[in-house]
Amino acid sequence: MADGASTNMRLKLPITCFILEIILIILFGVLVQYDKETDAREWHNESHSNYENDFYYRYPSFQDVHVMIFIGFGFLMTFLQRYGFSSVGFNFLIAAFALQWATLMQGFFHGMHGGKIHIGVESMINADFCTGSVLISFGAVLGKTSPVQLLIMAMFEVTLFAVNEFILLTALGAKDAGGSMTIHTFGAYFGLMVTRILYRPNLEKSKHRNGSVYHSDLFAMIGTLYLWMFWPSFNSAITAHGDDQHRTALNTYYSLAACTLSTYAMSAITEHNGKLDMVHIQNAALAGGVAAGTAGEMMLTPFGSMIVGFLAGIISVLGFKYLSPILESKLKIQDTCGVHNLHGMPGILGAVVGAVTAALATVDIYGDGMEDVFPDVASGDITASFQGVRQAISLAVTLGMALLGGLIVGFILKLPIFGAPPDAICFEDSIYWEVPGDEPSHDDQLTTVRTEESEKLNS
Amino acid sequence: MADGASTNMRLKLPITCFILEIILIILFGVLVQYDKETDAREWHNESHSNYENDFYYRYPSFQDVHVMIFIGFGFLMTFLQRYGFSSVGFNFLIAAFALQWATLMQGFFHGMHGGKIHIGVESMINADFCTGSVLISFGAVLGKTSPVQLLIMAMFEVTLFAVNEFILLTALGAKDAGGSMTIHTFGAYFGLMVTRILYRPNLEKSKHRNGSVYHSDLFAMIGTLYLWMFWPSFNSAITAHGDDQHRTALNTYYSLAACTLSTYAMSAITEHNGKLDMVHIQNAALAGGVAAGTAGEMMLTPFGSMIVGFLAGIISVLGFKYLSPILESKLKIQDTCGVHNLHGMPGILGAVVGAVTAALATVDIYGDGMEDVFPDVASGDITASFQGVRQAISLAVTLGMALLGGLIVGFILKLPIFGAPPDAICFEDSIYWEVPGDEPSHDDQLTTVRTEESEKLNS
Amino acid sequence: MADGASTNMRLKLPITCFILEIILIILFGVLVQYDKETDAREWHNESHSNYENDFYYRYPSFQDVHVMIFIGFGFLMTFLQRYGFSSVGFNFLIAAFALQWATLMQGFFHGMHGGKIHIGVESMINADFCTGSVLISFGAVLGKTSPVQLLIMAMFEVTLFAVNEFILLTALGAKDAGGSMTIHTFGAYFGLMVTRILYRPNLEKSKHRNGSVYHSDLFAMIGTLYLWMFWPSFNSAITAHGDDQHRTALNTYYSLAACTLSTYAMSAITEHNGKLDMVHIQNAALAGGVAAGTAGEMMLTPFGSMIVGFLAGIISVLGFKYLSPILESKLKIQDTCGVHNLHGMPGILGAVVGAVTAALATVDIYGDGMEDVFPDVASGDITASFQGVRQAISLAVTLGMALLGGLIVGFILKLPIFGAPPDAICFEDSIYWEVPGDEPSHDDQLTTVRTEESEKLNS
Repeated sequence: MADGASTNMRLKLPITCFILEIILIILFGVLVQYDKETDAREWHNESHSNYENDFYYRYPSFQDVHVMIFIGFGFLMTFLQRYGFSSVGFNFLIAAFALQWATLMQGFFHGMHGGKIHIGVESMINADFCTGSVLISFGAVLGKTSPVQLLIMAMFEVTLFAVNEFILLTALGAKDAGGSMTIHTFGAYFGLMVTRILYRPNLEKSKHRNGSVYHSDLFAMIGTLYLWMFWPSFNSAITAHGDDQHRTALNTYYSLAACTLSTYAMSAITEHNGKLDMVHIQNAALAGGVAAGTAGEMMLTPFGSMIVGFLAGIISVLGFKYLSPILESKLKIQDTCGVHNLHGMPGILGAVVGAVTAALATVDIYGDGMEDVFPDVASGDITASFQGVRQAISLAVTLGMALLGGLIVGFILKLPIFGAPPDAICFEDSIYWEVPGDEPSHDDQLTTVRTEESEKLNS
Repeated sequence: MADGASTNMRLKLPITCFILEIILIILFGVLVQYDKETDAREWHNESHSNYENDFYYRYPSFQDVHVMIFIGFGFLMTFLQRYGFSSVGFNFLIAAFALQWATLMQGFFHGMHGGKIHIGVESMINADFCTGSVLISFGAVLGKTSPVQLLIMAMFEVTLFAVNEFILLTALGAKDAGGSMTIHTFGAYFGLMVTRILYRPNLEKSKHRNGSVYHSDLFAMIGTLYLWMFWPSFNSAITAHGDDQHRTALNTYYSLAACTLSTYAMSAITEHNGKLDMVHIQNAALAGGVAAGTAGEMMLTPFGSMIVGFLAGIISVLGFKYLSPILESKLKIQDTCGVHNLHGMPGILGAVVGAVTAALATVDIYGDGMEDVFPDVASGDITASFQGVRQAISLAVTLGMALLGGLIVGFILKLPIFGAPPDAICFEDSIYWEVPGDEPSHDDQLTTVRTEESEKLNS
Repeated sequence: MADGASTNMRLKLPITCFILEIILIILFGVLVQYDKETDAREWHNESHSNYENDFYYRYPSFQDVHVMIFIGFGFLMTFLQRYGFSSVGFNFLIAAFALQWATLMQGFFHGMHGGKIHIGVESMINADFCTGSVLISFGAVLGKTSPVQLLIMAMFEVTLFAVNEFILLTALGAKDAGGSMTIHTFGAYFGLMVTRILYRPNLEKSKHRNGSVYHSDLFAMIGTLYLWMFWPSFNSAITAHGDDQHRTALNTYYSLAACTLSTYAMSAITEHNGKLDMVHIQNAALAGGVAAGTAGEMMLTPFGSMIVGFLAGIISVLGFKYLSPILESKLKIQDTCGVHNLHGMPGILGAVVGAVTAALATVDIYGDGMEDVFPDVASGDITASFQGVRQAISLAVTLGMALLGGLIVGFILKLPIFGAPPDAICFEDSIYWEVPGDEPSHDDQLTTVRTEESEKLNS
């Protein structure tokens, strides 16, 4: 696939980074302005308490989301024995790029005011959300791509994400505050299609590195737990203020708790010796957050949330155990992190649950709160059932956009100029990083000397 | 104790998880409702700003507590060289179960409205608090129990916790916002009694695994620091709004800082060569948070908080150094994490400090703020001294409930059906987990080839 | 330099800790009081909603800063292969001391009310800020100092920090909310001067330990990412409420994102084989936060912030690559963590950007918000240009104070009584810590037995 020499990043990576960042800076200079809540003059132009600034009602959620993006996704992918630097480091790089590019792309579609993009804490959350989608796709191609490929992928994916998001939320009027569709389904199927196009028939040459070691699994649990703990903040970060944010966090909390129990149960039952598999715990326990992404802000009830989470955990473990091997052998989809099981299927489940929950909405249940959750139903423009139809159509659109987008971008990434690693050196940090050894550099003799010396000194 | 074959979890764990979760879902369906702040109709039924929703005044504290439960407790226990998966993983499992069960149990006792349990961010914090108590007990039995035993223990302990909490806070009118008694003393002595009943005379067969390695101690420091940093949020999470939350966080902050200095001092002074012991740093430095759990919301003053923290650190290190070995050899209490030193004695200290501080409360000091901290004293129903008596009785009740509860639950857990590990395979992940190797799987030859290949490619 | 036997800390460390903590407790008892927002009587003496308590508008930022101090700085320094315990552990110790001492020192200079120091969440943030400065200096001397030396250094540095801060913010009327000058420039040059005075000509004897291993670099990335993610909270933690906090967070977010891309670009371009260097990623990617410390609260615009971050990343990588070796060989400055590149030069850049941005402020841009950012300009007392001059003078004062202070303190630390490690045992935990082995303690035979046993049991 790739000519070996091409993996040298000395020119490719700096050129890509510099060009992208300079374009970003120029576009920000031309197009981006503080919004009313961040601009000194605008904010003080109106009469209000400083405590009413949206900063105080969104920023704590933003920071939780931010941790999920950089620590959560970054460390979740450190499970590979020899790819920790790249997992955390490329995650860092493409996220830092994607959040800037997303500010512009999302701004074009729904943040323009008089020809300018207005930004504040809400746009920061949305930019982080869009970045999350790119990082999901990164999980599918993990270990098999160069940083330049990843930046190129991010550039196209962010753009398509913004288009898809605009179609769903603005054109179709769907609700998807936690992004079961816009973030998870889109990111997963986009990434799966990209990895399909980048199929490597000889990947088994790197098979011995495509697994974990003891401590790499512990690092990955840091990522898992931060994603798990902060998912209630993720799903509630951009819902309406008041009961909506509160309810979304609550629903997500119980969905995740139920999901964790079904994940442990399924992990033990599917292994012949009844042992738990870290791959399941690290991933499937999170499916409850994905599956509550659309319906979380609705009156799903804690009862409903727990059922959704419970099913999501079961589906996800079954996917890891039985479906992923089939996808690889039959459909030639090499999904390194199993994003189909964590984001793909649970995302679709979340979209379906969202559609059903929307269709069942009544004034009796929502009262005057209907306006926050389903404004078009509250205004009488459409029925609740039709809102459900909108949601279902949105899922179909998302799948179509993701697969088509992944197809095109996959072929772009196949160009032999981006420095992809050869089949025999996948899942390996040392191709792109200066890598130190595994063990402290003193030999045994030195240790002994040192210990004796140290004991003598301290006696 | 346990028949070897019984450690196979293929049926036991899934059956336990599924039964528990299905019961939970049914009970939630029957009994649990959104509260006024999370229900769309109820919230919009009254006139108020969305910014007044309690979400904005409790949720940041909740998230800090949540991190303490899952990252803090989970990673604190990863210090064992071969028990990291179980420490983090079983912590995750039993916490996810316990928070659901606690929602119900605590709801029965103090959240019922017209036959339904109303839930929101405050019940989520309380559920996490109750979970914390279970995780303390987990620390006492760490490495010697199966996940099924832990789930059974959690089920009983959560129930007893809710009863004890009801007696203390509602029946006796005690104050214990940070849980020196309800959480720490209860969890510690419950766990110590359980581990006493589960005494293993031949545990020395696993002694070589009952210790740390270099990197496992660093993982444990992640847990320690998150507990330390967020303890001010823990103690203040459910106090009254305003000065109370603010003061509690402040008191806890200074108690912990003082505790850290006395911990380092005591650690160096108790080792013959003056070296610091990671066990002390990881644990005793936290005792200041435990000891400020009851009095933190009172007018303890920063001065008083620092004295409390200072003493807590000293007591805790002395406990690790001199008391724990005696407890093990004389009383047959095998306390893996030393929870007696971190939660037991400092919890009692905190209860005593709380009783004394309450007894010394005057209107001169508290002004109109008395109503928030000691409502019965403010209303003139009781004297401050009597509030102190209430606090002291509460400590006695807690100790009695914990010891009696631990006794009964210990005998239940002794039943040979739960799959406890044999004495020679304690503190060992591989009995319940698929465990990868310690080192990257390429051999030296491969490394050399790879390096050469890589250099050639990059030249 | 140091007599070997002196490294035994059995008396030195406890005596230092106990004396310092007892002095702190006495001074807190005499001088420190709750402020209006934390005192029960004072708060309830006035009429206001509990939701107006500053706790709700500062505490989430405080907690983010707190994480940066203990996890961020602590883990950033764990990159050394054999100095993880000391990096995290001494960071913990000196931070716990420094925040108490800073409360007093900063209180003397700007928190006195009727002879008492009033404290609350804002003083907690300021104490953490001052602590950050000490930890920056710690980075320069990392691996070459005893814990007693570090405590002594912290005591003096905190005092000088408070004096310098008072001169800048109160006497000179400069603005520096995120501390480009007060925290970063001061901490860096103070530390560089201390390490210059403590120059060790024979440090190459410990050279083999002055580097990372694979997993130590991953631990360090935890520190890096927490610093990176929470830097927007750091810079905005004590700015005026409303648009100011909001804008500062936004500016810092984009500065850091741009800095990350230039860091990756420069890291690849400066290595002959185009590989990324973890040292750059762990450190230089943070320079954008440092450089936005002064101007972050001003109307720097996202465009300006990105340019600042972009330049900071470039400068910082170039410093690591080309300047640090020169500083070491020519100026005899052994800067373990390269604080000159992360905090020194970017701090000066931030101060200059702040001076220029201040000088360019107009009423047209700031409107009534001018009063929050530049009160003296808003009141007409001075021109914007003169505010710029104030800023520039502040930088000069800071550099002078830091270098002079570091000189004096360096000589104090040279006294042979503090137990500094000998040249051959620098960067080594075992001199001050009980250190376990690297590998699980079971030998191969045991493992085999255990595995067989385990398999038999599970069959």
